Amino acid sequence: MSRPIILGIVGDSAAGKTTLTRGIAQVLGPENVTLICTDDYHRYDRQQRAETGITALHPDCNHLDIMQQHLALLRTGQPILKPVYSHKTGTFEPPQYIKPNKFVIIEGLLGYSTRAARDAYDVKVYLAPPESLRADWKIKRDTQKRGYTKEQVLAELEKREPDSEQFIRPQRQWSDIVVTFYPPNDNETENGGHLNVRLILRPTIPHPDFTQILHPDNDDSESPVRLGLDRDMGKPVDVLEVDGHATLEQVNKIEHVMCNDMPYLRNVCDREINPELGKIAGTTGETLQSYPLAITQLIVTYHMLKATQGHS
Amino acid sequence: MSRPIILGIVGDSAAGKTTLTRGIAQVLGPENVTLICTDDYHRYDRQQRAETGITALHPDCNHLDIMQQHLALLRTGQPILKPVYSHKTGTFEPPQYIKPNKFVIIEGLLGYSTRAARDAYDVKVYLAPPESLRADWKIKRDTQKRGYTKEQVLAELEKREPDSEQFIRPQRQWSDIVVTFYPPNDNETENGGHLNVRLILRPTIPHPDFTQILHPDNDDSESPVRLGLDRDMGKPVDVLEVDGHATLEQVNKIEHVMCNDMPYLRNVCDREINPELGKIAGTTGETLQSYPLAITQLIVTYHMLKATQGHS
Repeated sequence: MSRPIILGIVGDSAAGKTTLTRGIAQVLGPENVTLICTDDYHRYDRQQRAETGITALHPDCNHLDIMQQHLALLRTGQPILKPVYSHKTGTFEPPQYIKPNKFVIIEGLLGYSTRAARDAYDVKVYLAPPESLRADWKIKRDTQKRGYTKEQVLAELEKREPDSEQFIRPQRQWSDIVVTFYPPNDNETENGGHLNVRLILRPTIPHPDFTQILHPDNDDSESPVRLGLDRDMGKPVDVLEVDGHATLEQVNKIEHVMCNDMPYLRNVCDREINPELGKIAGTTGETLQSYPLAITQLIVTYHMLKATQGHS
Repeated sequence: MSRPIILGIVGDSAAGKTTLTRGIAQVLGPENVTLICTDDYHRYDRQQRAETGITALHPDCNHLDIMQQHLALLRTGQPILKPVYSHKTGTFEPPQYIKPNKFVIIEGLLGYSTRAARDAYDVKVYLAPPESLRADWKIKRDTQKRGYTKEQVLAELEKREPDSEQFIRPQRQWSDIVVTFYPPNDNETENGGHLNVRLILRPTIPHPDFTQILHPDNDDSESPVRLGLDRDMGKPVDVLEVDGHATLEQVNKIEHVMCNDMPYLRNVCDREINPELGKIAGTTGETLQSYPLAITQLIVTYHMLKATQGHS
């Protein structure tokens, strides 16, 4: 009997966690996936936070001991009675009984903040969009779905910045993959399916050998699909970049590297079997095809499948 | 660092669980005790139970896997996020964060129904009043505190009887102590502080050596404090009986046996230090002194203290 495979998706508020989570769940098959948002482990409800001035980003505002306890239980396949925080009302509701499926995706603000929690994941992703893009996303979401005004969102962002700095962004160091969607030009903001992606691949998990796609002259700085060496938080990493205007032919090379190593992934790459791969809602609700998103979904899926082989 | 000591108080609805639990918590010092009622682990709320016809006594109506998980966590001193069922509204509320104190008392209907749950307790008590007395107690409580009519309570008792038979009463076999308060004459019912008690002491935990109180001629069948051999559910047990009309002098002999073995218990026995020992509310709310209850509280406390020595 194999245990569930646990994926972490951590990042600041409106960094794109839910979008990435849903896309990967779609690729893995929703019936195989248990989704958990660590916001449910808040210690104080919205009113209590407003009264005391503590932000949801502060470790003290969360039952991190219970979060890591539940992660450890899920990792061994045990059910949990998960607390439920309603973003709509800002209050807690009765808990939910959850039996983990084959894959468990944990998304949240502070998922990597304790050692015991970090030990529970098979794959750890950190989302790090440029702050200007994150502000755009947060304004859009919180005004449309959580009943705030634009001014309230901007004030909240400013209020939260010290906690983002102190508690959220340092978690980047614990991730296996840092995902940064960014507009092609620095002064542009949200651009739907045409965002580029920068994937920082930390050598903490066995990534596919992407050096196969390097040009023979080892200079692909002009290519819409690029692999390069860099340091992230002082440590050596590979950086895979895919531009929003890359063609299917160009991204196919990366897909083949992954599929050769993980044959099951061929079904996932097949656009006829998986029409949702890389699909994203544009600014006016229309569906766009993003190859940068598709590659991001595929590499995370690659690692989830790889992890199932580790103990099958 | 020592782990919490866990006491189980199991018995059917209105068997006197809460009364015994509160009394023991009082004796151990409320600040040292964490009280947990397993009714909080119901799977269905009152309305769902009414719709499907399942009773709260049925294992399927409870998250027994989560209950035993939480028991195992508490036993190792870990905090839990405990579900909350409101008997007043019949619905679930947001969960509560609970860090175990030195002593944890778990009271409920199905506390001994799984092997893993049973393994979590240091001391297991089962409450078995005569069914006629339990019916009196249930009518009194449910009409006064839970908004039912006498007819509804009687109908509920009848409806629950098959589940009581199948799921509740068999748990008696797993207990270390079976507590039966009973009226001196069979045809009497509730009689306040004057109920007798029959304590079945199963040799599964190290009971004090009560043979010291046996009369030299080994016949104390007429004494208001009696020790005898018997079988319970087919297995040999000691039976300690204390009548409601026993005098303080007569029960003092039993208290001394326990105190000699467990010196700290002297403070507990001291009526000046512990005026609440053996106190119980009479039928009209007045406070009565019950020596049978006092002895019951003391022997359970004896075992709780004994358990702390096992791993200090």
